[in-house]
Amino acid sequence: MKSTMRGVTLHADWQPRPGFKLGAKDIDHKQTYLGSKVWKNPKVSIDEHPIPEPKDDEVLIEMKAVGICGSDVHMNQATDDGYIFYPGLTGFPTIIGHEVSGVVVKGGKNAFDKRTMKPFKGGEPVCAEEMVWCAKCRPCADGIPNHCEKLDEIGFNVNGGFAKYIVLPSRLVWSLEPLRRAYKGDDIFLAGSLVEPTSVAYTAMIQWGGGVRPGDNVVVCGGGPIGIAAIRIMKTQGASTVILSEPEPARQKIGKLMGADHVIDPTKENFAERVLQLTDGMAAKLYLEATGLPTIVYPAIEQAIWEGRTLNSTVVVVARADAKMPVTGEVLQVRRAQIVGSQGHSGHGTFPHVIEAMAAGMDMTPMITKKIKLDQVPENLVLLRSNRTEGKITCVDFN
Amino acid sequence: MKSTMRGVTLHADWQPRPGFKLGAKDIDHKQTYLGSKVWKNPKVSIDEHPIPEPKDDEVLIEMKAVGICGSDVHMNQATDDGYIFYPGLTGFPTIIGHEVSGVVVKGGKNAFDKRTMKPFKGGEPVCAEEMVWCAKCRPCADGIPNHCEKLDEIGFNVNGGFAKYIVLPSRLVWSLEPLRRAYKGDDIFLAGSLVEPTSVAYTAMIQWGGGVRPGDNVVVCGGGPIGIAAIRIMKTQGASTVILSEPEPARQKIGKLMGADHVIDPTKENFAERVLQLTDGMAAKLYLEATGLPTIVYPAIEQAIWEGRTLNSTVVVVARADAKMPVTGEVLQVRRAQIVGSQGHSGHGTFPHVIEAMAAGMDMTPMITKKIKLDQVPENLVLLRSNRTEGKITCVDFN
Amino acid sequence: MKSTMRGVTLHADWQPRPGFKLGAKDIDHKQTYLGSKVWKNPKVSIDEHPIPEPKDDEVLIEMKAVGICGSDVHMNQATDDGYIFYPGLTGFPTIIGHEVSGVVVKGGKNAFDKRTMKPFKGGEPVCAEEMVWCAKCRPCADGIPNHCEKLDEIGFNVNGGFAKYIVLPSRLVWSLEPLRRAYKGDDIFLAGSLVEPTSVAYTAMIQWGGGVRPGDNVVVCGGGPIGIAAIRIMKTQGASTVILSEPEPARQKIGKLMGADHVIDPTKENFAERVLQLTDGMAAKLYLEATGLPTIVYPAIEQAIWEGRTLNSTVVVVARADAKMPVTGEVLQVRRAQIVGSQGHSGHGTFPHVIEAMAAGMDMTPMITKKIKLDQVPENLVLLRSNRTEGKITCVDFN
Amino acid sequence: MKSTMRGVTLHADWQPRPGFKLGAKDIDHKQTYLGSKVWKNPKVSIDEHPIPEPKDDEVLIEMKAVGICGSDVHMNQATDDGYIFYPGLTGFPTIIGHEVSGVVVKGGKNAFDKRTMKPFKGGEPVCAEEMVWCAKCRPCADGIPNHCEKLDEIGFNVNGGFAKYIVLPSRLVWSLEPLRRAYKGDDIFLAGSLVEPTSVAYTAMIQWGGGVRPGDNVVVCGGGPIGIAAIRIMKTQGASTVILSEPEPARQKIGKLMGADHVIDPTKENFAERVLQLTDGMAAKLYLEATGLPTIVYPAIEQAIWEGRTLNSTVVVVARADAKMPVTGEVLQVRRAQIVGSQGHSGHGTFPHVIEAMAAGMDMTPMITKKIKLDQVPENLVLLRSNRTEGKITCVDFN
Repeated sequence: MKSTMRGVTLHADWQPRPGFKLGAKDIDHKQTYLGSKVWKNPKVSIDEHPIPEPKDDEVLIEMKAVGICGSDVHMNQATDDGYIFYPGLTGFPTIIGHEVSGVVVKGGKNAFDKRTMKPFKGGEPVCAEEMVWCAKCRPCADGIPNHCEKLDEIGFNVNGGFAKYIVLPSRLVWSLEPLRRAYKGDDIFLAGSLVEPTSVAYTAMIQWGGGVRPGDNVVVCGGGPIGIAAIRIMKTQGASTVILSEPEPARQKIGKLMGADHVIDPTKENFAERVLQLTDGMAAKLYLEATGLPTIVYPAIEQAIWEGRTLNSTVVVVARADAKMPVTGEVLQVRRAQIVGSQGHSGHGTFPHVIEAMAAGMDMTPMITKKIKLDQVPENLVLLRSNRTEGKITCVDFN
Repeated sequence: MKSTMRGVTLHADWQPRPGFKLGAKDIDHKQTYLGSKVWKNPKVSIDEHPIPEPKDDEVLIEMKAVGICGSDVHMNQATDDGYIFYPGLTGFPTIIGHEVSGVVVKGGKNAFDKRTMKPFKGGEPVCAEEMVWCAKCRPCADGIPNHCEKLDEIGFNVNGGFAKYIVLPSRLVWSLEPLRRAYKGDDIFLAGSLVEPTSVAYTAMIQWGGGVRPGDNVVVCGGGPIGIAAIRIMKTQGASTVILSEPEPARQKIGKLMGADHVIDPTKENFAERVLQLTDGMAAKLYLEATGLPTIVYPAIEQAIWEGRTLNSTVVVVARADAKMPVTGEVLQVRRAQIVGSQGHSGHGTFPHVIEAMAAGMDMTPMITKKIKLDQVPENLVLLRSNRTEGKITCVDFN
Repeated sequence: MKSTMRGVTLHADWQPRPGFKLGAKDIDHKQTYLGSKVWKNPKVSIDEHPIPEPKDDEVLIEMKAVGICGSDVHMNQATDDGYIFYPGLTGFPTIIGHEVSGVVVKGGKNAFDKRTMKPFKGGEPVCAEEMVWCAKCRPCADGIPNHCEKLDEIGFNVNGGFAKYIVLPSRLVWSLEPLRRAYKGDDIFLAGSLVEPTSVAYTAMIQWGGGVRPGDNVVVCGGGPIGIAAIRIMKTQGASTVILSEPEPARQKIGKLMGADHVIDPTKENFAERVLQLTDGMAAKLYLEATGLPTIVYPAIEQAIWEGRTLNSTVVVVARADAKMPVTGEVLQVRRAQIVGSQGHSGHGTFPHVIEAMAAGMDMTPMITKKIKLDQVPENLVLLRSNRTEGKITCVDFN
Repeated sequence: MKSTMRGVTLHADWQPRPGFKLGAKDIDHKQTYLGSKVWKNPKVSIDEHPIPEPKDDEVLIEMKAVGICGSDVHMNQATDDGYIFYPGLTGFPTIIGHEVSGVVVKGGKNAFDKRTMKPFKGGEPVCAEEMVWCAKCRPCADGIPNHCEKLDEIGFNVNGGFAKYIVLPSRLVWSLEPLRRAYKGDDIFLAGSLVEPTSVAYTAMIQWGGGVRPGDNVVVCGGGPIGIAAIRIMKTQGASTVILSEPEPARQKIGKLMGADHVIDPTKENFAERVLQLTDGMAAKLYLEATGLPTIVYPAIEQAIWEGRTLNSTVVVVARADAKMPVTGEVLQVRRAQIVGSQGHSGHGTFPHVIEAMAAGMDMTPMITKKIKLDQVPENLVLLRSNRTEGKITCVDFN
């Protein structure tokens, strides 16, 4: 084993916008909770890094498949004034990549495999959470780690997976053994790299949206990876009619491939009218806002709720946006509806449930439309700034 | 027994606004779901009515205490162009009054007392739901009668309780026997007349808001009867700190009397700042919007949610308003919060739970600040157009 | 239309066992809540009955498909001392048959179609609940009609569906229109006749058992119709591994056909060991006791809970039995488990959800292994006393 | 500060019973999950121990009040053949005492106060969980730390609180600052020492029992500390009628003092009959089995469920017992009831909710009937083998 490895490294300049004040968890010149307020001139390069050594509680993992996420693209993309798009927790330079899947090389002396409750032997196929919840703050103690008050994030402020190796605390690592029932050879890792984004959708739709009972209808607004994953999860959970609202033909196509019963183009059709038509006037039990355009999307959803006969429906907000949704309280009252927010993918048994559901046939891998090498990650980060036809682009060769 | 009785009767003229179209459940010249679009020149008079005779499933009840509700005031109040304020289901002329409490005179042959599962003998103290859910439509069959698709409403489109007698289907009638543990003599009926509005607050806070666990904090926005009832219910359920936000001193006073730990005047103090200060930075698990001014109130609540440490908080909307709440989805995400709507008081065991809770000490009667006779109902309907110092005004003499 | 019709009529003699006392809802010589304590010498005959006329709230339905249920068999089967097997609510003579499906002939003036909210025109394909919940008692008012305190039961104490026509209150009738998406011609009625038993399993597994999230495992004990329906529902809801425990090969086969991933013969294999082996040591989130043999089945389930790693698992009891389950409280504590009971199929949106799920592909019709004429119902009631190879036997010709 | 301290130390001999095999987490001669199978000849002495030094994540706490728990008594009590009574996780010698409350002396460099999110300064009043959940296994990752697969327990297999000082991981430590609203001076620690047992009852009644809504009734079987705490919690949560079933007059008295509306002596009265009489025939929504005698108690509870009108009631098992409860599944079905198990007190926001509820008036301190010095702990451990009149005995002087 060499002592160094190459890693797709994001660099940027610490140039806080006027008026920016360091927050409680910000570290001067190093880390901030508000990326787009601080970091300028992002640049990705493939740098040499020492191969990390796992501490007592950590595991060293050799990467096998790592997907590119929209966040990766936005960290590497600047607005006209030079600041990065990505608004959240960031500490640069860092190796990016957080949809990780690979094989355990070795574990520290206190690291153990949650599946077997034994120390790692090496060779175990695994994936990992992206959120390094602290296990010590009040939300963590209360069982809500997605809202950890001392959070780190893999590939954002600690080194991520676009590299030959990564070290991670064992509590974030989940065995992919069950996937052997459904996948052959290294396909296990393709599926494994999708556990993280699928868990984001699972948290939104099932943990906080309450899921569906067989016979309920669902509308997913936005055919990006989270929306697409939500479609597949909802069909797996017995949704009767799942409708994808998405203007982009390539995304419509992948939505159908992943199980959507119907697709609406909201720029050409009346959303509420179509939803009612496709559901015999019932509309839906669950709506997912996964577009980031709530000012446009919410009024359309509200109309469907108002005119549909389904009571107790839930709108789940999973896409970030600053813009205000114009919400008519009376609609929530008369139709007994609710709006809930969701973020993250940790806790609540989500990762192991997603893995087990994948093992039982919830195949997400058709989302992956392109496989690349480590060297190609930078150019694909640029490609995805404008491309809307690819599903997931996944790095599968880290040499 | 005389064959007629006097009843406080609301009359108005059927003069639909331009463009008004009869809806599915509207009846020309008789009933509409959109009162303020149709009825003009409201006028209350005390008229003679025949004493009604109960059908097989019905009960004849002699009124003992009936409260005045804001809806009663708004049916009798016109805007500048002459149309009534009240926007909902209405059919005139009708005897108004729906917070009813009295004594059973007799029951039809199929009417029975839900408490004893036996026919009524006469003499039973009872109150009743205001919503005449049909028991046949899909929401009723599904157990969500507050959203009945064939609803009638007592005192709105069928004769109500500001009269010596009323007939009601037995399924809406609930025994007040348990209240004998807590009240003497006719005070049972004062408490009984408050079961309906208390059940509206119980439905909002507990059924749909999810209630609190001992140790949670609550903020109630708006010190009208529903807000006041919510305060008392939340203290009964073990809320640690209950804060009332209300500018009117008389309402602040009654809020404190009913259990609020703190009162905020949101016109003079920074709402979010005060909430955080009074809760050691936690803010609240449950917020009630009971003002009807969501454009002002929601942003303040949102700020408290954003800055407070409580996760999973819920905003319950119980006051009607056309205006849009400006909702930042990201706040719902980051703080794992939700907004839910609530209407009605029927189903879910609410009435019998409220009665039993009152029997065990949840005393709502301090809300009643004035007792009147039937003859005084009309003038008090006018008084309440502007008065903001009275709590409940309750008719206790129907002769 | 003739004025009479033939109906499969169950007769028996009112000969209460020593010590039997009429209960509150029993009617001397006519009806009892405790069938096996009263009725002797059951006899089925095909009798002429007047074609019933619907009252204002009722619907006249022409039968198209009606399944035979185990209860039908047990009402017609006597123990050695001559008393009927069936222990529940019964009033004889009555036309039996309660898994009904057919076409509306006409409706009374207040009867309406819950799907359209309009009066019936005739010609609508429908099925119906078997439980005539009263809509007036406290459980009905509270939204728990399966526990109605004034219950009648179709085909038990009021005339059922093994006849050309039936009349039913419209609130019990559900449209089969959605099934046209999935079935051709009269197959809609085969599916329709299975809505009732499927709803019993849906109530047990989803309403009270809490259902599963994709990735959970399920064990169904007993491969009768309810167990078989539960298997299909659980696979529809995304259960990862569903195991049927059942010794009878014919039932094992139908279980696999309906989606069971694995079958255990508990008389030949160690139940807990096999469950653990098939689930990688996790055991199950949901167990269904559908055998009626809890003294044998529960200890085996308990062992699987104790040795499996799944927390929060639920055992649902849906089969009636007098025998006591030996329950170790400590197992419930250490594994955070629970035991719940379920009966009935009404309320909670169950019927329309089952119909909609069937329309979306949850096909139960492979359960039907034999189609018969009305004349053949009596002989098949006898056949099913001993036969354990048939799934559902369904009457499809009522002439 | 001296370098040693005195600690009440439990010693016993490692003499495994015939057939005992070391389990996965047992450590030869040191620790076992099955105390009563291994440890013989228990003996308590007050030994000198080095004052511990906190590691990076740990806190050093000076004890102010520590209660004696039944487990402490049973670890120090032998059966006729010399083995200890206590059946669970134990590692000797160890300083016992786990209902701890005190003042922070200093914290390690990574230890922080969950209330302030800042490092400890020293001087903070705190209490602590007894369960050292590992934060790394699957149940911990899933948010169910009471079922941690790598559990340690303070005062059982790691040193506890009957000593001048204790060190604990900061994630287990909870601030008592809120209690200053309700208690003066050192009384804060008396209340603080009751947070742990109160949290056991809160977990049972609210987290897993589902709690009550105002107006529900509750029956608590067994007037030991957990039952007594449950009474107070249920009254705080708005239970209408709370009944304690307990034969011991001293415990009956403390039950009434803590809020029980009625007390039943089940050895002299018919339990079910009395429950029905005291609840107007409704019986209860929630039953707590806190006696450890389920073979006697469960049949009585079952009769109350069967004869009472309350549906959806829940029996929570919180007391350990080997004996089987004879459970009639049909009763669970007909009354829509369930039985659930509960153990532990960690996670789910329980500790901070209990502290906040205590701050708002849920006063548990009347449970403490005797205050003692460290020297008196051994003799009181002996006293409590037979004494049934004391509530809590609490050590308040550690010099």
